[in-house]
Formats: sequence, C-alpha cells, structure tokens
Amino acid sequence: MTSPRAGSLRIIGLGPGDDAWITPEASDLIAGASDLVGYAPYLERIPAREGQMRHQSGNRVEMDRARLALRLVEEGRSVALVSGGDPGVFAMAAAVFEAIEGGKPAWRDIDVAVCPGISAMQAAAARIGAPLGHDFCAISLSDNRKPWSLVEKRLAAAAEGDFVIALYNPASIARPQRIHDAFALLRGLKSGQTPVVFARAVGRADETISIATLASVDPSLVDMSTLVIIGSSQTKTIARKGKAPFVYTPRGVDP
Amino acid sequence: MTSPRAGSLRIIGLGPGDDAWITPEASDLIAGASDLVGYAPYLERIPAREGQMRHQSGNRVEMDRARLALRLVEEGRSVALVSGGDPGVFAMAAAVFEAIEGGKPAWRDIDVAVCPGISAMQAAAARIGAPLGHDFCAISLSDNRKPWSLVEKRLAAAAEGDFVIALYNPASIARPQRIHDAFALLRGLKSGQTPVVFARAVGRADETISIATLASVDPSLVDMSTLVIIGSSQTKTIARKGKAPFVYTPRGVDP
Repeated sequence: MTSPRAGSLRIIGLGPGDDAWITPEASDLIAGASDLVGYAPYLERIPAREGQMRHQSGNRVEMDRARLALRLVEEGRSVALVSGGDPGVFAMAAAVFEAIEGGKPAWRDIDVAVCPGISAMQAAAARIGAPLGHDFCAISLSDNRKPWSLVEKRLAAAAEGDFVIALYNPASIARPQRIHDAFALLRGLKSGQTPVVFARAVGRADETISIATLASVDPSLVDMSTLVIIGSSQTKTIARKGKAPFVYTPRGVDP
Repeated sequence: MTSPRAGSLRIIGLGPGDDAWITPEASDLIAGASDLVGYAPYLERIPAREGQMRHQSGNRVEMDRARLALRLVEEGRSVALVSGGDPGVFAMAAAVFEAIEGGKPAWRDIDVAVCPGISAMQAAAARIGAPLGHDFCAISLSDNRKPWSLVEKRLAAAAEGDFVIALYNPASIARPQRIHDAFALLRGLKSGQTPVVFARAVGRADETISIATLASVDPSLVDMSTLVIIGSSQTKTIARKGKAPFVYTPRGVDP
C-alpha cells in the first residue's frame, strides 16, 4: 500500500428528489468525504466543496462505480458513494457488497457502512395518505438481471398473500410490454376496484401523482421515473370535495 | 367553528432512535408546530420549545391520539403528530386516515400531510450490509387487529415468492408463542441456511445486531424492540476476519 492511512467507504442515500429528505447523517458524511462517487444527477444535487474530488459515472455501470469506490478507499481516500432514495433498497449498496464478495480478499477488511435514506415508495405513499400502512412488498420489475418468470412468480405470490405492492423500475424502454404484462397478470388475480397509485418524479419540480383503480388504470402512463403502488383488498380511498382522495391501508383486518 | 384560522396536521416520522436520521423536513415541521402530539418516548426525543404545547399519550391508544390531533386542528392549531420510524409504515398515518374516514365529514377537508422517515427495516439493513437489496416484503406479526391465519397466509406467500422478509412487531407479551409459530412455519418452507438478522434497538445506545441461520436461530431472543430480517434464497453472507459478516441480497438472480 502506498497510502499511510486507512480509507473508508460510506454508501449514502439522498432520498427521492427533495433535499428536505436528506438526513443530517447523510449531509455530514458527504461534507466529510475526500471523494464523492456517483451517478451524475445525484452528484449534481450536492454543492461543490473546495478540495473534494468528484467521480461521476453513467447509470448502467453500477459494478464499475462500486469497484472505483473500493479502489479509492484502498488509496486511503474517505469515499462517499452517493445514491438516490435508500441505497439499501434496489440501489448501490448491494452492488458494493457484490463487488466486495467477488473482489480482492483485502476488500473485506474495508471500513464500509451504509447510510439509509427515504425510499421512493415512502415518499410516494406520504403524498397520498398511507397505502403502506399494513403488510406490503416491494418488487423491481426490471428483468435485466433476473428472469421475467421470477417477476411473474413474485407478483402472483404478492397477490396470493394480499400484500400491498410497490413496483420499482416499472418501465423499460427496451421492453415496453413488461408493465402491461404485469398489470394483465394482477388484473387476473385481484379485484378491479383495487386502488392504484402512479407517483412520478416524487419530490421533484415535475412531480405528478395519479390515483385510479386496477380495472381503469392505463399502464402506458408509467415511465422510468414512476413508482407504482397497488393496494391490498383492504386498501381504501377517502373521497374529498375539490381535492385528490386519500388512499390508505388500515392497520388491521376484521377477523 | 370558534377559531378564526384553519389549522393543519403533519404526521411526522423521527426514524428509529438516532437523531441523525431525523430529516430536515421533520425538524422544520416540528419546530413550526403549535402543538406536538405523540407517544411519550417519541416526544421525549424532541427539545422543549417555549410556547409549544405537548400532548403525550400511551402506546395502545392510537385512535384516541389520532382523534385528539384532529380535534386540535379544528381549534385552529398547527399540530405535529410525532411517530418513530416512518409514520406511513405500520404506524400512526394509517390510524389518522382511519379516524378521518370514520369521523366528522369536515375532517376530510383538514390540511393533512405525511412526512416520511427512515423505517426500522432500513436502519437494520444498513447496519449489516444490504439484505433488502432485492425484492422484499414487510409483515407485522401482531395479531391484535388481524387473524393469525392471515399472518400465516402472508408468511407462506412470502416464502413461495422467495422474498426477503422483514418482520415488524415480532414479539408479544400476551402471545409469546407467535414468533415460534412463525419461525416453525418458515423453517418448513425455506432452506435452513437462509440468513436471519435480529436487529434490536437500532440507533439507540443499547443496539445489538445478531446474524444466524434459519435452522440455528433462537426465536426466544426476539423482543418488542427487535426487527427481524429473513433472507431470500439469494441472500448471502460475506465472512470477515475478526468482524461481523456482511449480509446482502444481490440485485439479480442468475437465469
């Protein structure tokens, strides 16, 4: 090793869009880092700081980004690897541990810790009520790294268990049919009256939230910035005059 | 109405234990409230502020607390209803919307919004790696307000779908057998080598984290402050010399 001191890696979540959701822990760790590593739009959210190095990368190179962060730590740097949402939920933390597991044995001794953040489903839920107020599951619809048959199996199990369902990565430019396939599957297993929420760009200036039912909703409105929530059989809509309804899932079920 | 001005209700999550996880949004809303309402241990985390009223209550009176908050808003107060974790996840937000749905029609017009927080499963996951790095579900084991048969159905569906499972409210003084029943059910459906994490009092001074396997773990160690995470078939443990292992779920599955 050429460096006289040990580096550290902090994997940090900024939350979705609104800086008021960045925790003090995250802000402090970012301020104290010698190097910031991340996907460009996340780094752009962080004010420049004199002497702090920035290493930005594209969206589809998660393993490269994780390994870059680990190599910088080897050089004695204090690295903040910055992610949107919660890095522990469908994000960079798993990529880092994959890189550690498959990398140099010395990487297992690196001082690494995860700093949680508000995840997109929590922000989306907060905007319209409390749809995640009872048992729920979170499923990534991306089939880049898993077979579509596993997505179908999990959607069916989620319907069988009557979970509220949050869908991450629901749209794919390469495979635009997938979101339609997912809704077709769920329509065969759940009531058409089930509330469905599309929360787009939550916490950003162009945020839009729409509420529909499983029978009426148009899956083609979903894009890559959309978080989808599909209710359980218990999820309710509270109508309001002149305002969007509330959507919530009660804490219990009548026996 | 006797009040000349309209009140508002903000349902706020402090996150689990560590104040470094309280978002700036939450801090600002708490600082600006005329009245704080909450379970006593959560209110005790908030510094006193001159002129700000406090209304603390016990743990098992969620609906009373929600209605108190709504009545204060009717009187024109700016109410911060404070919860641990994320109020939208197994917490106070659903109770408020239940109270609104079942209460006076005018309550539907109240200015109410939810402020999300870090939930216990996110903090627990961050402490040991990235076990929630891929598809997961969250289940409350409490059968205070739902039949145990529904808990069993959801545990079985979660195993069938090969989800990572986060268990909230896993222990009950009134029904200490429940956590044993849940583990017995899961042991019949999942590999004994599945990683299991018990995260107790995360973010508090007495935090303890333990990692075991489904076959070896002792469910009697679970108490009401414990968040339980049970891996999917893909969840891995990375051994380290002289340190606790990392636990993570990869972002994909080999086709």
